[in-house]
Amino acid sequence: MDSANLTARGVLAVAVRVFNERGYEATSMEDLSRKLGITKSAIYYHVPSKDELLRLALDRALDGLFAVAQEARERTGPAIDKLEFLVRGSIAVLVDRLPFVTLLLRVRGNTKVERDALTRRREFDQVVAELVKQAEAEGDVRPDIDPAVTARLLFGTVNSLIEWYRPRGGLGSAELADAVCAMAFSGLRTTG
Amino acid sequence: MDSANLTARGVLAVAVRVFNERGYEATSMEDLSRKLGITKSAIYYHVPSKDELLRLALDRALDGLFAVAQEARERTGPAIDKLEFLVRGSIAVLVDRLPFVTLLLRVRGNTKVERDALTRRREFDQVVAELVKQAEAEGDVRPDIDPAVTARLLFGTVNSLIEWYRPRGGLGSAELADAVCAMAFSGLRTTG
Repeated sequence: MDSANLTARGVLAVAVRVFNERGYEATSMEDLSRKLGITKSAIYYHVPSKDELLRLALDRALDGLFAVAQEARERTGPAIDKLEFLVRGSIAVLVDRLPFVTLLLRVRGNTKVERDALTRRREFDQVVAELVKQAEAEGDVRPDIDPAVTARLLFGTVNSLIEWYRPRGGLGSAELADAVCAMAFSGLRTTG
Repeated sequence: MDSANLTARGVLAVAVRVFNERGYEATSMEDLSRKLGITKSAIYYHVPSKDELLRLALDRALDGLFAVAQEARERTGPAIDKLEFLVRGSIAVLVDRLPFVTLLLRVRGNTKVERDALTRRREFDQVVAELVKQAEAEGDVRPDIDPAVTARLLFGTVNSLIEWYRPRGGLGSAELADAVCAMAFSGLRTTG
């Protein structure tokens, strides 16, 4: 990686942090230049606009999630295993790119960039819903919940991790995924 | 209920909607007076300040949740049943007071009112964590997940409902609670 690229990543990392703290709308390029300790034109050397910064940030979350979704679909075996693979992989992306996924999950659709991100999120949700449906058809997922609701509950649980999980807290990404999968797939109860 | 009270509730309902749409900080009393179609002094007749409006709104969510928590603790029987009662009751509050709970769950602690609400949220989380611990001690909850993590996952799932659940969507509060409890307590898998 050349140093120009490294700096672009640095700009992005700081921008995402500030967007998460203050909100995207409330953040100006002026604010970013102050936080970064570089001039606005130095920022514009790396990215053409604040909008483009947002797009790059959201894509970092979405590209990670879509790579996992593709991998999940290409696996062989029962859909329930693909679904669990997708849950684990999504948690790994969430842990690895926490500020980016956090930003993505707070997007409300106020700009074109945000609406594009929401469209991709819906595509991802579609993949989840399809796998749940298949797993139910294969008899591996309980049929008493609507597959669309199951998909939402499952990824609602995954997405809620951004509210409390902090990588330095001791719990690793794999342990976190184990805990989520234990609850969601096998249930908390040890008794009937 | 007298008509002054009714109007205070009306002001609160609109204020919460606007806070959720634009964010509390970004909303002025001017904005609220426009949305309500009444003068600012008519608003001040009901509430002394924007801060106080926020406190009233957050208390509507918190009072509902604490009433359920108290009821859950006062029940007799195994802790796992109290825990399930608390999950179901919290979902009922969330469905019934959706805009208020949504506002509560987005609070970041920027003002004293927000910090007070976060303190009460932590007290609520403490009740959940205690019940999980007891249920684990009684052998009814799987011991392979840290009780604090179990509590967070469980209420992460409940809280994530604000992101997609809409009361008019066909799924009632009780069915929603059934779905959450089926997944969280018994698991999605029908197979070992």
